[in-house]
Amino acid sequence: MTNSLDRALRERALRVVPGGMWGHMHAKDLPEGYPQFFARAEGARLWDVDGNEYLDFMCSWGPVILGHHHGEVDAAALAQLQKGDAMNGPAQAMVELAELMVELIPHADWAQFEKNGTDATTTAVTIARAGTGKRKILVAQGAYHGAVPWCSPSLVGVTSEDRAHILTYTYNDVDSLNAAVEAAGGDLAGIIASAFRHDYGQDQELPTVAFAQAARAAADAAGAALIVDDVRAGFRLDLGGSWERVGVRPDLSAWSKSIANGYALSAVTGNDRFRAATQSIFTTGSFWCGAVSMAAAVATLTILRRDNAIAHMEAMGTALREGLAALSASYAIPLRQTGPVQMPMVLFEDDADRRKGFAFCAAALKAGVYFHPQHNMFLSAAHTGADIARALEAAELGFRAVRALAPVAA
Amino acid sequence: MTNSLDRALRERALRVVPGGMWGHMHAKDLPEGYPQFFARAEGARLWDVDGNEYLDFMCSWGPVILGHHHGEVDAAALAQLQKGDAMNGPAQAMVELAELMVELIPHADWAQFEKNGTDATTTAVTIARAGTGKRKILVAQGAYHGAVPWCSPSLVGVTSEDRAHILTYTYNDVDSLNAAVEAAGGDLAGIIASAFRHDYGQDQELPTVAFAQAARAAADAAGAALIVDDVRAGFRLDLGGSWERVGVRPDLSAWSKSIANGYALSAVTGNDRFRAATQSIFTTGSFWCGAVSMAAAVATLTILRRDNAIAHMEAMGTALREGLAALSASYAIPLRQTGPVQMPMVLFEDDADRRKGFAFCAAALKAGVYFHPQHNMFLSAAHTGADIARALEAAELGFRAVRALAPVAA
Repeated sequence: MTNSLDRALRERALRVVPGGMWGHMHAKDLPEGYPQFFARAEGARLWDVDGNEYLDFMCSWGPVILGHHHGEVDAAALAQLQKGDAMNGPAQAMVELAELMVELIPHADWAQFEKNGTDATTTAVTIARAGTGKRKILVAQGAYHGAVPWCSPSLVGVTSEDRAHILTYTYNDVDSLNAAVEAAGGDLAGIIASAFRHDYGQDQELPTVAFAQAARAAADAAGAALIVDDVRAGFRLDLGGSWERVGVRPDLSAWSKSIANGYALSAVTGNDRFRAATQSIFTTGSFWCGAVSMAAAVATLTILRRDNAIAHMEAMGTALREGLAALSASYAIPLRQTGPVQMPMVLFEDDADRRKGFAFCAAALKAGVYFHPQHNMFLSAAHTGADIARALEAAELGFRAVRALAPVAA
Repeated sequence: MTNSLDRALRERALRVVPGGMWGHMHAKDLPEGYPQFFARAEGARLWDVDGNEYLDFMCSWGPVILGHHHGEVDAAALAQLQKGDAMNGPAQAMVELAELMVELIPHADWAQFEKNGTDATTTAVTIARAGTGKRKILVAQGAYHGAVPWCSPSLVGVTSEDRAHILTYTYNDVDSLNAAVEAAGGDLAGIIASAFRHDYGQDQELPTVAFAQAARAAADAAGAALIVDDVRAGFRLDLGGSWERVGVRPDLSAWSKSIANGYALSAVTGNDRFRAATQSIFTTGSFWCGAVSMAAAVATLTILRRDNAIAHMEAMGTALREGLAALSASYAIPLRQTGPVQMPMVLFEDDADRRKGFAFCAAALKAGVYFHPQHNMFLSAAHTGADIARALEAAELGFRAVRALAPVAA
C-alpha cells in the first residue's frame, strides 16, 4: 500500500484550501492510512489516487445505494445530458420524479426539489413556519440536520439569534418531547426528527412506536408540522419513508443522499395540509432544475423498487452484523452494533477514545476494506455475499489488531 | 408555435408540485406563451418540450457561459464521470480547481467548494463572523444574496431573529454605507456587496470606485470582511473577480452560476486573513466533493481564459445594446439599458406594470428569441454576430408590438 500521490495532493491542497479539506469528508477524522483523494469507483469498490482498491462500506457517505456507476442510472443520466441539464426551466423528468415520489411515499401529495440535504431540511422548517404562522422548531439534542447556522453541529460563526426558536428534546424520550412542546407554548411550528437516531459517534436507535406516535399527536394537537429528516436514511429502510416502519406518517419529509445514486439532488415531500404554505415561501437555486439528476433519480427509485433492493441490503447487512458478532464473541472483544443492518454503526465497548475502533479500521483498510470507526456505514445493492465474506476476513485482521493493542495504563 | 405538451406537463405538475413550479424559474412571472418545460439545449439555442426553438438570452439564468453543451467541458465532465463523481472524498480535480482559482483571482489565497450560490454567500457570512468574533452584516437594500432566511427576498416563513444582525445600506451610496457601519457599532463582521447592482426589475448599476473604496476602507477600519457576491456576475466581467474593474479587492468572494458551464457548483475564495476562520467553521454537503462538476469547472475557466471569452461576450453584448438603442430611437420608444453589456437589463420607460416589456418579449419569443422582461439577461461565448442580428430582427417585432399596444386609459 503506497500513498505518495495522496500525500502530494494533500500538500498541494493545504496551500489552496483552508486546512486542506473541510467538512465530513476531511480525512483528519479517520485513522492513519486512510486516503483523502479518490480516483475511481465501480460497484461496491473504489480506488484511491495511489491505485489502492477498497471494498466500500461508506458509499460516498450514503448517496451510492445501487453501487457506484450503476449502468442503468448512468445511462438515464447520460441520455438526459445529451438533451439538456441546466436549461431555462425544468425538463419533463421533474414531473416524472414528483409523480413517482407521490406514488412511492404514502404521506406525499407533492414534491419539490433542491440540491443539498440542508436545503431540504431548511425548506421544510420554513414551510412549517409559513403554514402555521408560528416559530418554534423542536430538534433532538445532538441530531444532525445540516450545516447552516440554525442546525450546524458547530457554533463557530453562528449567533444566538440563529437558534432563537430552536428547542431541544431527547430522541425516543416522550417526556422530554412533551416538555419541549410545553416550552414552545402556543408558538409551535414543527417537530423535526431523524429517520432514526444516527448521531455521530453514538449508538444508533430506531424510533420507538411510542415516540413516533407521541410526536404525531403533539404536532396534531398544536396544528404543527411533523417533519421526518430522511436525508441520510431515505430509500434504504422503506421506499415510502423510514417512519412507515413504525406506522407514523409525517406532514413533511426531507430527502437527499441516495435519491439519485450519487447525482446531486434533494427533495421535500409533503401532504396537502402544507401545499399552500409551500407555494407561499420563496426558495430556489441556480441548479435545482438540473434535469440530469432528476432523470437519475427516476431511474434510481424505479430500480430500487423493481429489484427489491432494500431486502438485498438487509440480507447483506444482516450477514455482516452476524459475522462481526461471531468474531466479537470468538475474540472476546465486545462490540455494540446498532441501528438498521443496512446502515451499520459498529462501536467497541470501553473505547471512548476510539483507540480500538481506529486500530480495527486501520487493519481492515490495509486488507482493502473501507470501514468507518465512528460514523454509521452504508450498504448498497451492489454488495454481494462474497463481498461480505471478504469484509469479514478483513474484520478478523481488525480484531487481531485490537487484541494486539498495548493495555492502557490505569 | 404549439404548446400542447407544455400545457399537459403543467397540469401534471400542478398535481404533484405546489403551484406547479417554484422559485425563479416559475413561468408565471413571464409573459403568456413562455414555456415552462424544456427538452433540449445546444450552443446559444434551446428547445421547449413542444419542439419550439429559441435563441437563448437567459443561459439558464447565468450558468451557461460557453454555450449549452460545450464540447470540451462535456468531454472533461464525462471523462471524470467514467472514473468517479461522488466518492468517499474529493478527486484530484478539487486541488486543480482551487489552484486555478488562486491563480486567476488576485485576492484569492484559497478556495472552498459548495453546490448553491446561497451556500457560498452563507458560508462567506459565517466565515466573516468566525474570523472577527462579531455579528453584524451589512447588506444592500433589495440585493439578492440567496433564498434562505437571512437573505431571502421573501419574509414568509422567516422570523425576525433570522435577520437580527443584518443592517442595510443603499448600493453605491457612501453615506448610507457609512451610516450602516456606524449603526453596527463595534459589532461589524462583514459588508457584502453584489458584483454590481442587479436587483430584480430595477435598472442595473456598476459599482462606483468611490463606493467600492469606501466599502474597503470601512471593512479595514473595523477589521471586518469585505465580501463580494460574484455568484451571478462571476467570470462574465473579469476572470479575477468583478471588482477588479474598480480596483478594489474583497477579503472573500462567493461564486457559482457560470463556474462550471451549468454543472452544479459554487465556491468561496478568500485571502489569508480569513484562512484560519474558514478552517474553524463547519460547513459541508453530501455532494460538495462531486468530482464531475469540479472537472467541468477546470475546463470552463481554462477555456474562458484561453479564448478570451469575456471580450467576445462584451462585443456581442455591445452589438445587441447598440442595435436595441437604434431600434428604440427609430420607433421613438425609449428604453433603459443598464449594467454590463454581457448581462443586459432592458426596461422600457413608463412601464411600471411591465405591459410594454411583456408585449416586447412575447413578440420576440414568437419570433424564436428568448428575452426576459424584468431580470437581467446573459450572453454566452456561443452567441455569434448572426445570432445578434437575428435577435435584433425579433426585437423589431417586439417594438412593433409595443407600438401597437392600446393606450392605457388615464
